[in-house]
Amino acid sequence: MPLPSHIEMGDGQFVIDGSLTIALDGYTEPRLTLARDRFLATLSRETGIPISHDAQNRPANFTIKTAAGSKPVQELGEDESYHLKVSPDSVQLSAANPLGILHGLQTFLQLVHISPQGFASPAATIDDQPRFAWRGLMIDSGRHFMPIPVIERNLDGMEAVKLNIFHWHISDDQGFRLESKVFPLLHEKGSNGLYYTQQQVAAVIQYARERGIRVVPEFDMPCHTTSWFVGYPQLASGPGPYKISEQWGIMNSAMDPTRETTFEFLDKFLGEMTALFPDAYFHVGGDECNGKEWTANPKIQAYMHQHNIKDNAALQSYFSGRVQKLVTAHHKIMEGWDEVLQPDTPKDVVIQSWRGQKALAVAARQGNQVLLSNGYYIDLNQPAAYHYSIDPLGGDGASLTPEQRARVIGGEPTMWSEFVTPENIDSRIWPRTAAIAERLWSPQDVGDVHSMYARMAVASDHLVYYGLTHQSFPRPMLQRMSGDSDPKYLAVLAAVVQPPEEYQREDLRQYTTSSPLNRLVDAVPPESDTARQFNEIVKLIVAGKASPEQWQQARTWLELWRDNDAKLQPSLPRSEITAELAPLSHDLSQVATIGLRALDDLQNHRPANPDLVASNMQLLKAAEKPQAVLRNMVVPPVEVLVQASPAH
Amino acid sequence: MPLPSHIEMGDGQFVIDGSLTIALDGYTEPRLTLARDRFLATLSRETGIPISHDAQNRPANFTIKTAAGSKPVQELGEDESYHLKVSPDSVQLSAANPLGILHGLQTFLQLVHISPQGFASPAATIDDQPRFAWRGLMIDSGRHFMPIPVIERNLDGMEAVKLNIFHWHISDDQGFRLESKVFPLLHEKGSNGLYYTQQQVAAVIQYARERGIRVVPEFDMPCHTTSWFVGYPQLASGPGPYKISEQWGIMNSAMDPTRETTFEFLDKFLGEMTALFPDAYFHVGGDECNGKEWTANPKIQAYMHQHNIKDNAALQSYFSGRVQKLVTAHHKIMEGWDEVLQPDTPKDVVIQSWRGQKALAVAARQGNQVLLSNGYYIDLNQPAAYHYSIDPLGGDGASLTPEQRARVIGGEPTMWSEFVTPENIDSRIWPRTAAIAERLWSPQDVGDVHSMYARMAVASDHLVYYGLTHQSFPRPMLQRMSGDSDPKYLAVLAAVVQPPEEYQREDLRQYTTSSPLNRLVDAVPPESDTARQFNEIVKLIVAGKASPEQWQQARTWLELWRDNDAKLQPSLPRSEITAELAPLSHDLSQVATIGLRALDDLQNHRPANPDLVASNMQLLKAAEKPQAVLRNMVVPPVEVLVQASPAH
Repeated sequence: MPLPSHIEMGDGQFVIDGSLTIALDGYTEPRLTLARDRFLATLSRETGIPISHDAQNRPANFTIKTAAGSKPVQELGEDESYHLKVSPDSVQLSAANPLGILHGLQTFLQLVHISPQGFASPAATIDDQPRFAWRGLMIDSGRHFMPIPVIERNLDGMEAVKLNIFHWHISDDQGFRLESKVFPLLHEKGSNGLYYTQQQVAAVIQYARERGIRVVPEFDMPCHTTSWFVGYPQLASGPGPYKISEQWGIMNSAMDPTRETTFEFLDKFLGEMTALFPDAYFHVGGDECNGKEWTANPKIQAYMHQHNIKDNAALQSYFSGRVQKLVTAHHKIMEGWDEVLQPDTPKDVVIQSWRGQKALAVAARQGNQVLLSNGYYIDLNQPAAYHYSIDPLGGDGASLTPEQRARVIGGEPTMWSEFVTPENIDSRIWPRTAAIAERLWSPQDVGDVHSMYARMAVASDHLVYYGLTHQSFPRPMLQRMSGDSDPKYLAVLAAVVQPPEEYQREDLRQYTTSSPLNRLVDAVPPESDTARQFNEIVKLIVAGKASPEQWQQARTWLELWRDNDAKLQPSLPRSEITAELAPLSHDLSQVATIGLRALDDLQNHRPANPDLVASNMQLLKAAEKPQAVLRNMVVPPVEVLVQASPAH
Repeated sequence: MPLPSHIEMGDGQFVIDGSLTIALDGYTEPRLTLARDRFLATLSRETGIPISHDAQNRPANFTIKTAAGSKPVQELGEDESYHLKVSPDSVQLSAANPLGILHGLQTFLQLVHISPQGFASPAATIDDQPRFAWRGLMIDSGRHFMPIPVIERNLDGMEAVKLNIFHWHISDDQGFRLESKVFPLLHEKGSNGLYYTQQQVAAVIQYARERGIRVVPEFDMPCHTTSWFVGYPQLASGPGPYKISEQWGIMNSAMDPTRETTFEFLDKFLGEMTALFPDAYFHVGGDECNGKEWTANPKIQAYMHQHNIKDNAALQSYFSGRVQKLVTAHHKIMEGWDEVLQPDTPKDVVIQSWRGQKALAVAARQGNQVLLSNGYYIDLNQPAAYHYSIDPLGGDGASLTPEQRARVIGGEPTMWSEFVTPENIDSRIWPRTAAIAERLWSPQDVGDVHSMYARMAVASDHLVYYGLTHQSFPRPMLQRMSGDSDPKYLAVLAAVVQPPEEYQREDLRQYTTSSPLNRLVDAVPPESDTARQFNEIVKLIVAGKASPEQWQQARTWLELWRDNDAKLQPSLPRSEITAELAPLSHDLSQVATIGLRALDDLQNHRPANPDLVASNMQLLKAAEKPQAVLRNMVVPPVEVLVQASPAH
């Protein structure tokens, strides 16, 4: 995962042992040597087989052939294709440049599996290249600071699934997370001490480059800028003083586009930051301006009147135009969210669409390059199948002309960080991002959801070898919630609940930037595998297509859920954090009891009492409501079971 | 854990929230500030509560008062005591110097637990100091190289349980793991490229010092030195050429003590290394010389004859004496294993006893300081209860005079690394080392094994917050062994098997330095919690003291084990690594079936058929034998059940 564009299986397999020896042929550079060493280290983790660092003068059985170098600063649209041939005796990997080699090595690592003969890759011939050139992942370090090791291990994960752009959302109302030497009050006053040094950022850029990943920074402006104003209130449209935002949501703060000093500041600032980030693209945000500070400021109002700026949208457009000139003067291509697109926006501005395929199509028609993020908001706890179904060229994108389609350069999952910490962020990114990576890499017709889930489960195990914590994170969190109690019964509950989707969490409870994220909602993955599998079995049962094993599996699960409450309940009041789970656990038991009865009725073709069905459905509808900010995912399939009961 | 020497519980509790604010009173230094920040970070991990870095001008509710500084280079026997008072409104921690503060902070972290009011420490007053001044942990980086992150996280674990000496066994036959600038062929030819730079070592020493831990290096000589001779064969007693040892066990290689050039080399070498390691003590090994190279070398034999050196032991004694003078000339105190002790050994040489309490008593009587490692060999897969029962002043140590007893300075668990990798080493060290740490810290009469196991389980969970992988390591290893199969049935088997104790593993299978350590024996902890608990319940059952819940627990487990084989068996042949587990899994089922029958007989007071008992006992005896290098730990308690059946 992502599935290669062309694969042909051969006979036999290439067995991995400690004598695996790699030769680098053709063009070479330190990045290739590092990639080889990293590949061997990952292969060792994946197999547990120590593979000697020393060449020991053995003849190579794994040949890497690179035709030429890639660009000194990685560019959009470079050749990323590779050719991989695995035979029982040898492996040959070749590519036009190191980018293809990096991808091919990851493909090989995914081919390796345990067999009766040991760890091996099946013989195969693969020709592969990406569908889209822009395959990104955005991480928001502004709202919750993410330490460097978190960034690094996620870059490793990106490499594993062939994503090639790390979009670093590095400032927001709640924090300015990067050292500025020109304007040091930005990080000194705007970060609570949690920021990256320029040296760290340079190291991340190098780390990413070694993995074939570009780093595009985003400094969101003119709004989402409260943290800037703590140290530099003169940039703001409001009277100040400002302090770092402690709430989530859209703030009123906005830069003042009517003062020349604002642009003088930004010119110097962009000078510093465009020098730090070598990528050709530079993201200036531009989203979610509510204009309240502009409306409330008489001087700004007077300026708008004087210059025939008819409304706040036009004022932002003026601001974006000025910023675009500055970005261009610093030799970068400007990128921004939908809002920066205006009829007169220069054609080289790249639009990132958080609004959707319709807005994306508008940009492409207007002549701008555009990438899709709407539908890939991995912070919103939606199922992998949903994200997988979204195509940058689906919806309105499908109606574009070939020329316009060529402007749709890819997509980017966005990891907004209101509700993640270093402890659980990996679980929100992975493994669902692997499914999105496949959407962006593989041919458009690769789309079978069952196959995707099966392969995503394998990819999820595989990503563990890259140091990602998406599988290991719940255990210590459940233990922490439970104190000295064994969390095994809590784990049964945890396996079938999910965080609410979209923005519902904020409606259910009040949160600030200092709210502990240590409750069950934070300790469960966005998508329950168990509930999803139960749901699939229920569909087969009501369709009359379930096997005896599937009937039995459904029963075993329902009995487990029915009986769990009695075991879990006594420990819940001992911990402030688990006390709130009592009704949820009770409901799970009740729902499972209803489900078992319905299962019995179905199995015995026994007509259900309509009154009982009605009252059960009422109970189930009530159990659909989130409790303790959690959704009980067993409810919908049990509703299906109840409604499928034969009529009286 | 370790249990404080004096604790008095108070009323109420101190609740942890994001407003916890620490003040540093009295003497201060950067180490204290770092300790505070590290404490807050650990507390945040432990609770999931973000605790602000900024003081924000709040009045402190956690006061740390340090009377004075400690020694610039931490010394043996410095005051490590502290006083900790936790009240519902505030915490006061005071100590004579930063060492006590470091310990007190760790005690507080262990007091924190989840309560109905949230995370809190109970009110308590603690006065605490260690029983022994030398509380070490040895890690062998020679046989399997351990990367710096492994060392660092284990130093964190050491700090958590108040160990204060990291004994770094850094060279052995299989690897010389430290950069030498004076003799670069040591690491260049003797390490397969896996070695620490001097800069890394200096950083580890600093890292350890920040945690109140001394670093004592060991360069084992004159034997265990094959890796030295690859680059410098002129040091050896044999003709060479040498290559890095690829086998485990005792090698014949030995330095040549009859050539002055050997001591000239060592003088320069010790000059370099004593400058790198600031600690006053310097370990030169001295163990396990078989003398074969000495006997085989006519020049050495001639020298011995000429100088009246009667045997190889005397030759080693001569060597040790010369080395001791060199170590002293470089202003260090020499430490060595038992073998360096001779009647004329200077009194300031410290003896580390791998031979046992008898050898320890000899050293103490002779006037040398001595510490115990025999009984603390954590690589030998013995139960925590065994290690816990060993006291440096037990056995022959108990008969020492008070003056001699004072020379027994402590002890050290030893993590020899033949059978560990970075992946599973934490599981061999933790949590059992916490029990040994308690033996070395707490009063001698602290010795209840049930209490130890209960508290060690809590300590084990706690150590997870220090980044140790002793709990998380099996899951990915089981997954790797199983390929795409769900490893849940394999986990049932894994939960009741153990690696063989002592040196039996090497008798059961051939291993070299490049053998993959990726089988079930490598993926299970040294001591099975489940089997130990089952064993405890069985003891209660046959004593007629088991509760109905305990009877039921025994039955549930036996049924689980009986039924697991049918589920696990089909997947085993799919993986080369699991194929060998088929007989073990089959036996577990059979053993459990026998156990269930015996349980029924006991419960129903039904006489057992003596023939059946005899044939079952025969089966059980056969099942005691290791299979796939693993012991089935269910067998002994089932034997107890069978033998307890009422007579016919």
